[in-house]
Amino acid sequence: MDTMRIRRVLATEPAEQEVSVHGWVRTKRDSKNVTFFEVNDGSCLSNLQVIFDRAEMENTGELDRVQTGASVEVTGTLVSSPGKGQKVELHGKSVHVVGESPQESYPLQKERHSFEYVPELAHLRPRTNTFGAVTRVRNAMSFAIHRFFQDKEFLYVHTPIITASDAEGAGAMFQVTTLPPGKESEDYTEDFFGKRAFLTVSGQLSAENYACALERVYTFGPTFRAENSNTTRHLAEFWMIEPEAAFCDIHCNMDLAEEFLKYILRYVLEHCEEDLAFFDLRIQQGLLDSLRHVVDTPFRRISYTEAVDALIGSGEKFEYPVSWGSDLQSEHEKYLTETVYDGPVIVTDYPRDIKAFYMKQNDDGKTVRAMDILVPRLGEIIGGSEREADLSRLEARIRELGLEMDAYWWYLDLRRFGTVPHSGFGLGFERLIQYVTGMQNIRDVIPFPRSVKNAEF
Amino acid sequence: MDTMRIRRVLATEPAEQEVSVHGWVRTKRDSKNVTFFEVNDGSCLSNLQVIFDRAEMENTGELDRVQTGASVEVTGTLVSSPGKGQKVELHGKSVHVVGESPQESYPLQKERHSFEYVPELAHLRPRTNTFGAVTRVRNAMSFAIHRFFQDKEFLYVHTPIITASDAEGAGAMFQVTTLPPGKESEDYTEDFFGKRAFLTVSGQLSAENYACALERVYTFGPTFRAENSNTTRHLAEFWMIEPEAAFCDIHCNMDLAEEFLKYILRYVLEHCEEDLAFFDLRIQQGLLDSLRHVVDTPFRRISYTEAVDALIGSGEKFEYPVSWGSDLQSEHEKYLTETVYDGPVIVTDYPRDIKAFYMKQNDDGKTVRAMDILVPRLGEIIGGSEREADLSRLEARIRELGLEMDAYWWYLDLRRFGTVPHSGFGLGFERLIQYVTGMQNIRDVIPFPRSVKNAEF
Repeated sequence: MDTMRIRRVLATEPAEQEVSVHGWVRTKRDSKNVTFFEVNDGSCLSNLQVIFDRAEMENTGELDRVQTGASVEVTGTLVSSPGKGQKVELHGKSVHVVGESPQESYPLQKERHSFEYVPELAHLRPRTNTFGAVTRVRNAMSFAIHRFFQDKEFLYVHTPIITASDAEGAGAMFQVTTLPPGKESEDYTEDFFGKRAFLTVSGQLSAENYACALERVYTFGPTFRAENSNTTRHLAEFWMIEPEAAFCDIHCNMDLAEEFLKYILRYVLEHCEEDLAFFDLRIQQGLLDSLRHVVDTPFRRISYTEAVDALIGSGEKFEYPVSWGSDLQSEHEKYLTETVYDGPVIVTDYPRDIKAFYMKQNDDGKTVRAMDILVPRLGEIIGGSEREADLSRLEARIRELGLEMDAYWWYLDLRRFGTVPHSGFGLGFERLIQYVTGMQNIRDVIPFPRSVKNAEF
Repeated sequence: MDTMRIRRVLATEPAEQEVSVHGWVRTKRDSKNVTFFEVNDGSCLSNLQVIFDRAEMENTGELDRVQTGASVEVTGTLVSSPGKGQKVELHGKSVHVVGESPQESYPLQKERHSFEYVPELAHLRPRTNTFGAVTRVRNAMSFAIHRFFQDKEFLYVHTPIITASDAEGAGAMFQVTTLPPGKESEDYTEDFFGKRAFLTVSGQLSAENYACALERVYTFGPTFRAENSNTTRHLAEFWMIEPEAAFCDIHCNMDLAEEFLKYILRYVLEHCEEDLAFFDLRIQQGLLDSLRHVVDTPFRRISYTEAVDALIGSGEKFEYPVSWGSDLQSEHEKYLTETVYDGPVIVTDYPRDIKAFYMKQNDDGKTVRAMDILVPRLGEIIGGSEREADLSRLEARIRELGLEMDAYWWYLDLRRFGTVPHSGFGLGFERLIQYVTGMQNIRDVIPFPRSVKNAEF
């Protein structure tokens, strides 16, 4: 008899039919004549409750081997459940313990199941409710990202992970090498790539090459920062989504980003209802309402100058004082979205001195065509810009910042031959998952987090 | 007026309607009164032919700026084309050159467009027919991979790229470090992760952690080999697909792999008809037939021992002689698929001494539950196995091979607590794209290839 996944079993109208399931035992409880246990197979958050009447069994030996963490195959009759919180339960007929779980050493005993304990057990934490739910939400969001861009005819492009270019300048980089440790010179001609190589901090510049030929592309891949930040907001390795579109100015870019964010949230609200209800109940109260609010609200669009005026005009006392020319801090972003505008805000035209060299320069000589999306509860969630498409302006900016012109020869070629207005944005996937799940620590939304002194598993 | 993507324009029934397009000029030709040029926007292989009657124009200056490589916006009337190979053409009314392309320096002049020339211009090669087609096929295959696994309720899991574990032993590894060059000791306590760290060679062991909790997972991410192989078949950085399923033995694994491969090929045959026809015509004759043959043929399943017997029994002279115990070479794999069985073959139960430590050991003490899928024209395309689920057998094998037991503590935990039969396979994405497109050099199926002495762009 074929086994059925538990998600489907739980959605079945009970009609006394026989079903088989398999999975891992989450809890077990014996009373005098009856044994209860719950099985989970990862297909959904809920367990299937299984009940065995010991008196009806010829041999209860196998039932005694059923313990928390064991893998089992169970066959029984699906019936309506009198219990709260479940529609059906399984009246067991036969059980087979596939793999035992010695109780004296199993680290995920129910009573020791506190949330703080689990991070040291990254290899077993997918066996918990929280990490199962995170994994399913992360999966659904990944697929939604692909669906969104495929529907819009964006081509998925795998930009390189290893790069000899440190041209993007987005942060401290890891070095990639095959040189034996203890090499005494800085001579990289002997190294694998014949020169110093790094792990990428962004796929943007590479993606621009493809957008300036095929119009619409996106990346979705790992990026790296070698920053010594041991916080709940930083990872050394994280996944980024970076669309890039030609013949697309900053307004087109804002439209795309707003539509993108709403699509992903709507998708996960529809496809991960049970898991999100769990996060709303256990992790972050009001989560569902705040996500729905973003989906339903047109994003307010204001300039950086307007944002600064609103913050100064509010009279609010901030930890970091606000003045034109300094970057917005998280407290400012939250104040704008939560108090001033009560919803998501897109801020454009930031001072050029606090933004990257590649952003399109406005005619005022002071600002660039950057756009950041800010949301309540988090602040900045998306950062993007229209790119400088004019060769001489871009060259002037590179010179002005003292960057090495030669390093950008291929990037400049895109402006030399058939240049077009183009723009894109970047989005840290783990930040978005934190936002959707309410998980406080970014290390809890990626399977095996990498951070300072932490590359275990 | 909104612009229309060229793929849609070319599929439109011409009814004298006005349309606007944008893109890059691929060729241009002037006769006395008429200017022809072709525009491509990446949405499909074909260009849109545009014709301007110069006599009808007040100002032909803008038309003179239209040159190969320039970006343009064109509005005109869509009419039936008398020319071969196209249903419609655009009778231009107005043209705007967005970005010029100086002909004296543009590297992709039509006459210099030979295939061998392009690899040194990775940033511009997406502007060619071949690389545009490769990019679209790669994109479609990526999405098909996600669709296949999502439909089967496999969860996409992002396994780590940086790892302190070199436990998989699949090949030479790159080291990841933030130590300044010239550090003289092998002391990694000062390094970012506090120990020696590497770029992953496989996500399998990590994926097993998730399969042994959530039943069905897959990875699709970059993997790395620091092998000094400067060939058309090797990359230092490439993408791998690795599904892993619990409660799934080797037969279930073979069924999954066969269904997967057929699904991807069928998807790309349906969704990339024009691009595949191009590859069939220009790159590899008979390509389409060979792909359809794989889709339509049940994969023959034989044991390694049967394969060796068939090869020896054939009387064929091979460069590498065949004997029980040695690995099958590419020439043997091709002979089996092309001559002996005339179709794809799944070979199982290889000698354990030529396979990895984690494969399930058969009771004969000589073979393991490996399975490789071989296809005509290529040889091995998928390699997988049922994993050893028995703790004591796995420990014995690790000891036998002299591996360091402590490095596997978490991997062994999966067998200690609720172990289950589980299996999976791995597939090099670029090898599969080569197979689908017929492209001879693996560096031509990834946007920015990394190999020995090559990390440019």
